[in-house]
Amino acid sequence: MSEKSPLVAAMSEEELDARHAEKMRKKKAARDKILATKTQEKGLVIVHTGKGKGKSTAAFGLVFRALGNGMKVGIVQFVKGKWETGERAALERFPGEVTITAMGDGFTWETQDRQRDIAAARQAWERAKAMISDEEHDMVILDELNIVLRYDYLAVEEVVDFLREHKPEMKHVVITGRNAKEELIDFADLVTEMEMVKHPFRSGIKAQRGIEF
Amino acid sequence: MSEKSPLVAAMSEEELDARHAEKMRKKKAARDKILATKTQEKGLVIVHTGKGKGKSTAAFGLVFRALGNGMKVGIVQFVKGKWETGERAALERFPGEVTITAMGDGFTWETQDRQRDIAAARQAWERAKAMISDEEHDMVILDELNIVLRYDYLAVEEVVDFLREHKPEMKHVVITGRNAKEELIDFADLVTEMEMVKHPFRSGIKAQRGIEF
Repeated sequence: MSEKSPLVAAMSEEELDARHAEKMRKKKAARDKILATKTQEKGLVIVHTGKGKGKSTAAFGLVFRALGNGMKVGIVQFVKGKWETGERAALERFPGEVTITAMGDGFTWETQDRQRDIAAARQAWERAKAMISDEEHDMVILDELNIVLRYDYLAVEEVVDFLREHKPEMKHVVITGRNAKEELIDFADLVTEMEMVKHPFRSGIKAQRGIEF
Repeated sequence: MSEKSPLVAAMSEEELDARHAEKMRKKKAARDKILATKTQEKGLVIVHTGKGKGKSTAAFGLVFRALGNGMKVGIVQFVKGKWETGERAALERFPGEVTITAMGDGFTWETQDRQRDIAAARQAWERAKAMISDEEHDMVILDELNIVLRYDYLAVEEVVDFLREHKPEMKHVVITGRNAKEELIDFADLVTEMEMVKHPFRSGIKAQRGIEF
């Protein structure tokens, strides 16, 4: 919280306006200077992790931003049962521009079958590898891949090695899920941690249409 | 990083499978028990804050999830110049289902004119109030409202009071921007802080189509 200093509190509106204009001039100059050094374009490896909400939702937002830019997007869901209703219906407005494929049989605590989960993870990863290395997709979303890596259904080294060796220069890959492994964080270009500050589940509110699904 | 204990490392595949099934059974039971207590539905006040990326992008993801569920969405951008190209093109696939309106003249360090910024903020807030209180929209996004509150162009008390008194019970309101004020965090149902772990700007990579805009 920014407390006003006594000096600022005593200023007239005109003084505040002049002070503001000067501050903003400096801010813009500093910003322009930094931006001038940013000239490189490349496909990014992006990770959304942390215990808070918004990891998959922000990936879903990136999907639509990319689609709006005429880019083609591939999505592999490593946990089935997500992105089912609202997401799929919204994606249907972009026929031929987005490919979505889901792994296996739902959350791992629903199946309770490790061997089936491992087989499903491998199968989804094969689909992911094809999308990462093809020339068709500009962006690939690997939703909840981190959960699969965390359970060691797939080795993080295998994923990082594949990205390093086979991801085309300009392709963006977005990986979501809590507990991202260090090796993946080290390799990624952009990592955001979503932290839970306050969650309505605490107060008895259930998952709702339009918010969670 | 989960290090394997020597005990787990020595287990056979069969033992690992059995151990996994037992753990997952317990996890599912605990989850189901918690979910059973979550019965309430209500419109949420959601805040995305923090210095990391994904605040507006996750709000944008919520827009499409809601649209995919047949809900109507209103968007007020308190900072113009965002959500311009990719976002607008994607939203055009949902004619009549989403209303988008932008305030004023761009980032405050671009205008360098405090009085104009204040007038634009007030005007945008009037649009926001209409969308928050109407019966048409199921979800309202107030993108970068936090920046306006931070500069005190609009009093946080006014915003919180309006939400408390005029937001219909089932309407969702999503507020984005770094430096969310305490009063807003206290009032909100769901608050996520996006933390920057790693950012490609550091290494000379510029803002790119499909990622930043």
